[in-house]
Amino acid sequence: MDAKKFSDPLSLRDIKVTDNFWKNEMELVRTKVIPYQWDALNDNVPGAAPSFCMKNYKLAADLNARKRANPSYEQPVWTTSNFNLVPEDINNREERFYGFLFQDTDFTKWVEAVAYSLTQHPDAALEQLADDAIDVVCAAQLDNGYLDTFYIINDQKKIFSNLRDNHELYCFGHLTEGAVAYYEATGKDKLLKTACRFADYIDSHFGPEEGKCKGYPGHEIAEMALVRLYHATGEERYLNLSRFFIDGRGRQPYYFDSEVDHKFTPKPGDAPLRHFYHQAHLPVREQTEAVGHAVRAVYLYSGMADIARLTGDESLLAACETLWDNIVNKKMYITGGIGSTNHGEAFTYAYDLPNDMAYAETCASIGMVFFARRMLQIKPDARYANVMERELFNGVLSGMALDGKSFFYVNPLEVLPEACHKDERKFHVKPVRQKWFGCACCPPNIARLVSSIASYACTEREDTLFVHLYMGCELKKKVGEKEVSIRIVSGFPYDGKVTVAVNTDTPVGMTLALRLPDWATECTINGVTTTKVALCDGTGDTLEGFGNKANISAPDAILTKIAETTGASFASVSDGYLYLTGTWSGNTDINLDFPMTIRIIAANPSVREDIGKVAVTYGPMVYCLEEADNKNNLHLLRLDCAHPDFKIMPDGILGAPSITANGYREEKAEEGAKLYHVYQPVKLTKCQLTFLPYYMWNNRGEGEMTVWVRSM
Amino acid sequence: MDAKKFSDPLSLRDIKVTDNFWKNEMELVRTKVIPYQWDALNDNVPGAAPSFCMKNYKLAADLNARKRANPSYEQPVWTTSNFNLVPEDINNREERFYGFLFQDTDFTKWVEAVAYSLTQHPDAALEQLADDAIDVVCAAQLDNGYLDTFYIINDQKKIFSNLRDNHELYCFGHLTEGAVAYYEATGKDKLLKTACRFADYIDSHFGPEEGKCKGYPGHEIAEMALVRLYHATGEERYLNLSRFFIDGRGRQPYYFDSEVDHKFTPKPGDAPLRHFYHQAHLPVREQTEAVGHAVRAVYLYSGMADIARLTGDESLLAACETLWDNIVNKKMYITGGIGSTNHGEAFTYAYDLPNDMAYAETCASIGMVFFARRMLQIKPDARYANVMERELFNGVLSGMALDGKSFFYVNPLEVLPEACHKDERKFHVKPVRQKWFGCACCPPNIARLVSSIASYACTEREDTLFVHLYMGCELKKKVGEKEVSIRIVSGFPYDGKVTVAVNTDTPVGMTLALRLPDWATECTINGVTTTKVALCDGTGDTLEGFGNKANISAPDAILTKIAETTGASFASVSDGYLYLTGTWSGNTDINLDFPMTIRIIAANPSVREDIGKVAVTYGPMVYCLEEADNKNNLHLLRLDCAHPDFKIMPDGILGAPSITANGYREEKAEEGAKLYHVYQPVKLTKCQLTFLPYYMWNNRGEGEMTVWVRSM
Repeated sequence: MDAKKFSDPLSLRDIKVTDNFWKNEMELVRTKVIPYQWDALNDNVPGAAPSFCMKNYKLAADLNARKRANPSYEQPVWTTSNFNLVPEDINNREERFYGFLFQDTDFTKWVEAVAYSLTQHPDAALEQLADDAIDVVCAAQLDNGYLDTFYIINDQKKIFSNLRDNHELYCFGHLTEGAVAYYEATGKDKLLKTACRFADYIDSHFGPEEGKCKGYPGHEIAEMALVRLYHATGEERYLNLSRFFIDGRGRQPYYFDSEVDHKFTPKPGDAPLRHFYHQAHLPVREQTEAVGHAVRAVYLYSGMADIARLTGDESLLAACETLWDNIVNKKMYITGGIGSTNHGEAFTYAYDLPNDMAYAETCASIGMVFFARRMLQIKPDARYANVMERELFNGVLSGMALDGKSFFYVNPLEVLPEACHKDERKFHVKPVRQKWFGCACCPPNIARLVSSIASYACTEREDTLFVHLYMGCELKKKVGEKEVSIRIVSGFPYDGKVTVAVNTDTPVGMTLALRLPDWATECTINGVTTTKVALCDGTGDTLEGFGNKANISAPDAILTKIAETTGASFASVSDGYLYLTGTWSGNTDINLDFPMTIRIIAANPSVREDIGKVAVTYGPMVYCLEEADNKNNLHLLRLDCAHPDFKIMPDGILGAPSITANGYREEKAEEGAKLYHVYQPVKLTKCQLTFLPYYMWNNRGEGEMTVWVRSM
Repeated sequence: MDAKKFSDPLSLRDIKVTDNFWKNEMELVRTKVIPYQWDALNDNVPGAAPSFCMKNYKLAADLNARKRANPSYEQPVWTTSNFNLVPEDINNREERFYGFLFQDTDFTKWVEAVAYSLTQHPDAALEQLADDAIDVVCAAQLDNGYLDTFYIINDQKKIFSNLRDNHELYCFGHLTEGAVAYYEATGKDKLLKTACRFADYIDSHFGPEEGKCKGYPGHEIAEMALVRLYHATGEERYLNLSRFFIDGRGRQPYYFDSEVDHKFTPKPGDAPLRHFYHQAHLPVREQTEAVGHAVRAVYLYSGMADIARLTGDESLLAACETLWDNIVNKKMYITGGIGSTNHGEAFTYAYDLPNDMAYAETCASIGMVFFARRMLQIKPDARYANVMERELFNGVLSGMALDGKSFFYVNPLEVLPEACHKDERKFHVKPVRQKWFGCACCPPNIARLVSSIASYACTEREDTLFVHLYMGCELKKKVGEKEVSIRIVSGFPYDGKVTVAVNTDTPVGMTLALRLPDWATECTINGVTTTKVALCDGTGDTLEGFGNKANISAPDAILTKIAETTGASFASVSDGYLYLTGTWSGNTDINLDFPMTIRIIAANPSVREDIGKVAVTYGPMVYCLEEADNKNNLHLLRLDCAHPDFKIMPDGILGAPSITANGYREEKAEEGAKLYHVYQPVKLTKCQLTFLPYYMWNNRGEGEMTVWVRSM
């Protein structure tokens, strides 16, 4: 592991997103999602199931106050492990915990999104709202530092008794992420201190020392949250605690088996699989296959990558790389979706990627973004950034409607609405986005990711700025005592023209590392065009870039020209990045052009569900067919792969460029036809196919959709 | 409805199966299944979950005896609604009911199979075993006639309190089917009288009269069982009770909603679907779509057909025809399998026929055989017999291994063993047959169907014998006071040559109605060959015969020749049957030849799962590809439909003719290949495909299988 290559995201206070595309998404989050979410967690959304989140915090705070006022106060104990009835009258109920056992995170995810949003769009009223809510939340904390209202209200004797199923350490993780974000955005440390006190309490309970609990989270996130807390506070204990959770995971005898308070006890036959779901079947360094609940998995891997980087742990990094490759090369939809089954929202086996039954949870794609950036921080290799970009523009953004008001939890690649309504196997696949979810994980996760998108666009080390995503932004890069202003203007995701403008009053020695996207087959830099081979895999230009390295150096002559034209003293290509090293002064514009082309993509023939089918991509965007443009029975359509005659229609559909192509439609059987008949070659009629970006599907009412279309 | 066309199955005492194919199946049932089943219901199968069936009967009989001896004896009441733990020591347990709440039917299905078997293969020891068991069962009956040990043992106050979920009327139905069969086979009426007493008790409880219960069975079967009881006893009350159950079903307000003892109360959102599962969402005459639990559905439709016939109810017959057409034209696998989802073992929506997730329960195919024969009894239309034949040779027999020792409950049309092991969505699909089932419905159902197969081969009316299935057999047909001996010799299912030999001492006026199978495109009768059009649908010879009518008359000239050569005075073709009417005397051989051809079949393009694919059939048999003959990755294979060059290999695989054909294999990606790549035309290598009869799949260990193969 080469620590010299490590990089960190920029503080969101030092980078402002100005990008047309992302600014629009951020505004949706700021003006629609965050206010809606606030109403939701205060039970103020008419017609929606109440969250009870803030009510739970208030009740916990009340109980604390009562006990402080009267030490002999006997708090009632509730044996119900999870109580989630939707009440008739939420204000007139028994004093007890309501909602999912991780209901606290409705607030902590909200405050995290708020924090990021404040860095990009200051808003005193919103900040005051958050400050007031933080007061309530902090008051709910027990004197010993513990803070999970489910157990505070229900039965404090049961704290940490069921790590496998319940979510205390998950709640801690989200609290910590929110607290660090709020501290970094506003400088206010009240919530941060609360998170630290909770972390300290956990640290006093868990650890390698004799007598301490050897457990680890049932739903991972604390691992990466503790690393953020370590960054924010410098306290090594938090780093060590994260490592402890990671190191202990999956060792035998299984910690989870020692817990007695499980709601569901596995049957004997379940034994071989029983810890897969939690990625606790093997020590993490021995895990080679991504298994179990996909969100849990990628949250864990993200934490592992953090610890690998911060502790220089090669074996942990190797495990991360193996797991990354396993996902990207065996278990990922072309949209970046992961977790192909709704049973446990989980990974299945290699190449099992059903399109119409996909789970591909929005949160899992978001988790892959977390994982990707952490791998990039260790190794600036474009294969991580390529997947990150693919996730963002496809599997993540498909989770939110264009108006920011409705959401997909599940992101299928093929939808027949009738199946979603009538076939229980597909009830998890919603043919239209939903307003909100009782288990509200995806919308707030989109909110916090979109609001913090700038921290994924670039990372930096002392003298290098890595541009992973081409996103319009303005940033300050410190190099020693000096500061460089950098402004990026980008036409992404539909136009590959980018300008990186460097401005500095005094000459600064600095390297710019610019990603060469996997989907681009050439690139023009200030008028100098690279050869194709410079930008793609060693196997030539026919490979789609999912996780492909772009590790071939451009010919020296071209690199020399690139250096000349950009004013750099040295240019090189490594792992899919163009490195421009030099001493920068005054204004330097670097104009990049990555021509976007329409590509027909096929899946590995081991993917049974995609056999005989192709998908269409344009730049980083995966496209799809919708009933609105192509009539129903999309399965009867075929793309003429030999003569597609693709045309881009700028502003074709919902403001995005659509793509037309030559296709054929197979004839339907006549009404009343039998189910089976003697084979005859099918009758095909020429037709035009119209594709739109996948993430925009289902913004025009219910209808069929497919990413994969039959080829001919 | 034309009552002159009605027919009835022959008594099994008047028809003996001599057929090579079916005799073998019957011997498997007689020598393997029936003894195994007896051991199972007496908990004598080492390693298998005990049935407790006979123990429950004995305990119920004991409780009855105690109460008779001591009228103040207070029987303990058990509130557990279903208790199915597998005990460590089954002989040393609390005195209570064990097993599924329909555990009584383990015996009643067994005794039914035994009864049929005794007609074909007398066996005094087996009969004695059954007699002794019947004594135990009859002793369990309450004095009032009630007989379901679940309620007798648990809580007699709860009798008939939960018709929807519990299975009292289902248990009654199987008791009655078993009792009638045993009476008809042996002339012994002890069990029949017990069934009658139970029927009388039910009749006293349910009915249109004021104060009587207006309920109906949650799991249908009593409807057709009561009709058999009516046939056996002549008691019209039983016919009326069956009609009462059918007429009341699905009327509003829903009877099931008035029951309070349901284990699962539907949530408000479930309302529109909540009675689909039980086919109780609409009055039966208004039902136009087959819905819900497939076995329940076809058992109901069978009962409806019985009542339609016996009461001349045209509206009920119309409902049966509509439901039949809905299944056959919209919801049936090419193998005859029905019920395409494991969720509720149920029908889904039209054209939803996933091959790898099929449920296609063996019992549901058996139920379709019941339904088909009852429709045939009303209307001798070959489309019913064609489906019946297809079911038997494919979807039914696939349920049992060639050695009679293991069974499929679920009959998929495509299997990837890895998916069955690793993907919870497919856990219901077993890649190998199982020894027995805790819920033992399919194996005993195969046993009773196979043992009584002769009652599906032929039906008769006064002066006509219908031959629906060409099966080697010897039968006596009474025409008035006279008796005709008929012997059928058949090469089915792999050879279409059949001889129907009629022998009578005195001249007898009689009609023979011989089915013209849908899969045959011509037929030679005593040397006279029909034209193709005579045997198929009006649309020509390109339609596969699933439910297709074969209702075009042969040209008069040919019919005249056929009459001449067979010695009949008149020949005609109607609804897919060749009618030979004449006065028969001495010996007459009618030699039929239905040349079997290999056909490539395609599905209606609305079946998304079969698009671009074809299946191969030979005569009545659906064929499939297995890994054992074609290597793995069957999805990479394609059949050269333009030049298949089919060859039949007699005794090719496991003693059955296999079929070879020209095919292509798509190249696998190289090891380590990425998931996605830029499309290039696929590379195909010529190969030979080897097909074997579907019902024989998985008799050579675990491996991939598919019925549908990609076409090119």
